[in-house]
Amino acid sequence: MANLPSINIGIIGCADIARKVSRAINLAPNAHLAAVASRTLEKASAFAKANDFPADAKVFGSYEALLDDPEIDAVYIPLPTSLHLKWASLAALKKKHILLEKPVGLNVGEFDKILEACDANGVQLMDGTMWMHNPRTQQMKDFLSDEHRFGQLRTAHSCFTFAADADFLKNDIRVKPDLDGLGSLGDQGWYCIRSILWAADYELPDTVVALPGPVLNEAGVIISCGASLHWDDGKVATFHCSFLAHLAMDITAIGTTGSLHLNDFIIPFQEKEASFTTNSKAGFNELVTGWVPQPSLHTVYTELPQEACMVREFVRLVGNIKANGAKPDQEWPARSRKTQLLIDAVKTSIDSGFTPVKVTG
Amino acid sequence: MANLPSINIGIIGCADIARKVSRAINLAPNAHLAAVASRTLEKASAFAKANDFPADAKVFGSYEALLDDPEIDAVYIPLPTSLHLKWASLAALKKKHILLEKPVGLNVGEFDKILEACDANGVQLMDGTMWMHNPRTQQMKDFLSDEHRFGQLRTAHSCFTFAADADFLKNDIRVKPDLDGLGSLGDQGWYCIRSILWAADYELPDTVVALPGPVLNEAGVIISCGASLHWDDGKVATFHCSFLAHLAMDITAIGTTGSLHLNDFIIPFQEKEASFTTNSKAGFNELVTGWVPQPSLHTVYTELPQEACMVREFVRLVGNIKANGAKPDQEWPARSRKTQLLIDAVKTSIDSGFTPVKVTG
Repeated sequence: MANLPSINIGIIGCADIARKVSRAINLAPNAHLAAVASRTLEKASAFAKANDFPADAKVFGSYEALLDDPEIDAVYIPLPTSLHLKWASLAALKKKHILLEKPVGLNVGEFDKILEACDANGVQLMDGTMWMHNPRTQQMKDFLSDEHRFGQLRTAHSCFTFAADADFLKNDIRVKPDLDGLGSLGDQGWYCIRSILWAADYELPDTVVALPGPVLNEAGVIISCGASLHWDDGKVATFHCSFLAHLAMDITAIGTTGSLHLNDFIIPFQEKEASFTTNSKAGFNELVTGWVPQPSLHTVYTELPQEACMVREFVRLVGNIKANGAKPDQEWPARSRKTQLLIDAVKTSIDSGFTPVKVTG
Repeated sequence: MANLPSINIGIIGCADIARKVSRAINLAPNAHLAAVASRTLEKASAFAKANDFPADAKVFGSYEALLDDPEIDAVYIPLPTSLHLKWASLAALKKKHILLEKPVGLNVGEFDKILEACDANGVQLMDGTMWMHNPRTQQMKDFLSDEHRFGQLRTAHSCFTFAADADFLKNDIRVKPDLDGLGSLGDQGWYCIRSILWAADYELPDTVVALPGPVLNEAGVIISCGASLHWDDGKVATFHCSFLAHLAMDITAIGTTGSLHLNDFIIPFQEKEASFTTNSKAGFNELVTGWVPQPSLHTVYTELPQEACMVREFVRLVGNIKANGAKPDQEWPARSRKTQLLIDAVKTSIDSGFTPVKVTG
């Protein structure tokens, strides 16, 4: 790691989320916040000033200009989903490694074109799912992978909800069919589906069926929905996502010999520590009036916030390519693709009246 | 309360769960553990001896004999579900008030016949759903009813799973079509459905649809299944129950302005204290790296275990009838009926290939 080069990262677009990622780039070792581009130079300059960009950072009045700068190694793309295909493909063509916000495309067909461009140009692609990089996530994964403590996954449930205000429900890009047209499913459902795939070791389910009763806005964008996922070996999972309910972000994963719970999987309650509870081989006391054993609380401390851990992982991969001629990692893009594939399946099920949709990789 | 009479309770059948309820009757004020009946006198005597029955308790070698004893005010019926119609109806005819194990019948038609017998004979019926009587439950209900802290329910999820051993899966009455033929749905699903109804203020959903992928044993009994419940106002709920996954018993209830979580709703982790977490009007800090406010943990202490609280409530109602000529309470039977009705709907949906089932009260 110490020998890897510093990676110059440019930000394409001044979305709200780019503020947090700018800070993360500043915090992450080997990452250099090198540039920001917006559709106007004024906006880019204001963003750089407001977000502690280093003095040598460049500002651009167009995305193309940033992509043409030979000093930029990699870009972070927080643009609306409808622009991902165009700008991620162009970034790849310009040999820029890509950290891409979720959902990665409007559908898996779009994402496959982005992946083709990345493959053709030897660039790394990783999506911006920050919680994957929290050290808690690895500790939870260790538990889920433990034959003794957890066994085989049998069922999982995930939810991500927040109560959007009137302004969000009217104006946010996530309620606009021409911007983030997948709405709550693409935004919140992405996390739920990813968490289920993560718990299932990225084994795709065989069937997905949307639950009845999704809520769509006047423009036809999903603002609340859910689905159940089914594996032929009997595993089942459900999720619910909504812009219309109080903030919640839960994972419950239940295996043959253990269980895992947490209620803040996407954004930990606190930045520098994160917890989860587990139990293994639990039963009841003799009169069935209490549990034996009691569940265990695990708390994981992290000096670097999870979004900076994400940047650290991204620049590690990019640095290996740049310095050592390594091949781009294929695991992160494969995880993105599976997540998008299942979003598509849920959407198809909703559009076809909640019929089961066979998942084909 | 102090003026209410002591109620003589007889137990019909020596099921495992009757051990816990015997102790609860001994613990509850105004309840007297007066008798036990089994199909043989030996079994009844052994049960009485093993479960701290008072010296004056009677033992009977037949259920009829206990029901014919004029000193018995009320009976607890932990018999297999397939015997509920016969014995609860006869108990009512003999003017015994009834504490009835769940599920209350094989279907709501059976339960309606039991209710008719209770009505005709002026006896109280209450089901044995113990967690309803934990003082924690009332505190949680206060939260869910709070317009400010919780708002309107939008979504709920519940699960009850435990990993049954090979002996259970082969021999327990809950896997036998002629005994507790509703299997996991009748046993575990009962709690899940009740918790969802409880969170929804007992408002019946408009539609129920079973999730694909239930597991049935060779005899056709459900040992794992799930369903989603839908209200026309947009509320949705899901549940999962299974004999094939590690012990878990969760409720997540998410309203417009608050959320509630607990992972031990049926049997608290500890007998004398029980917790839950809530959050209200939560959002994120400025950079979206933590929650504001943090969730709150609430712990409720109870000297009397929840099953003794259940007996206390039952004998309070019976005492009021006996001493004051009160009418039997109608709320508890109505809750039992709604729970059974939804179990029937899930079963119908499974049997019809996971089609949505309209719920008609």
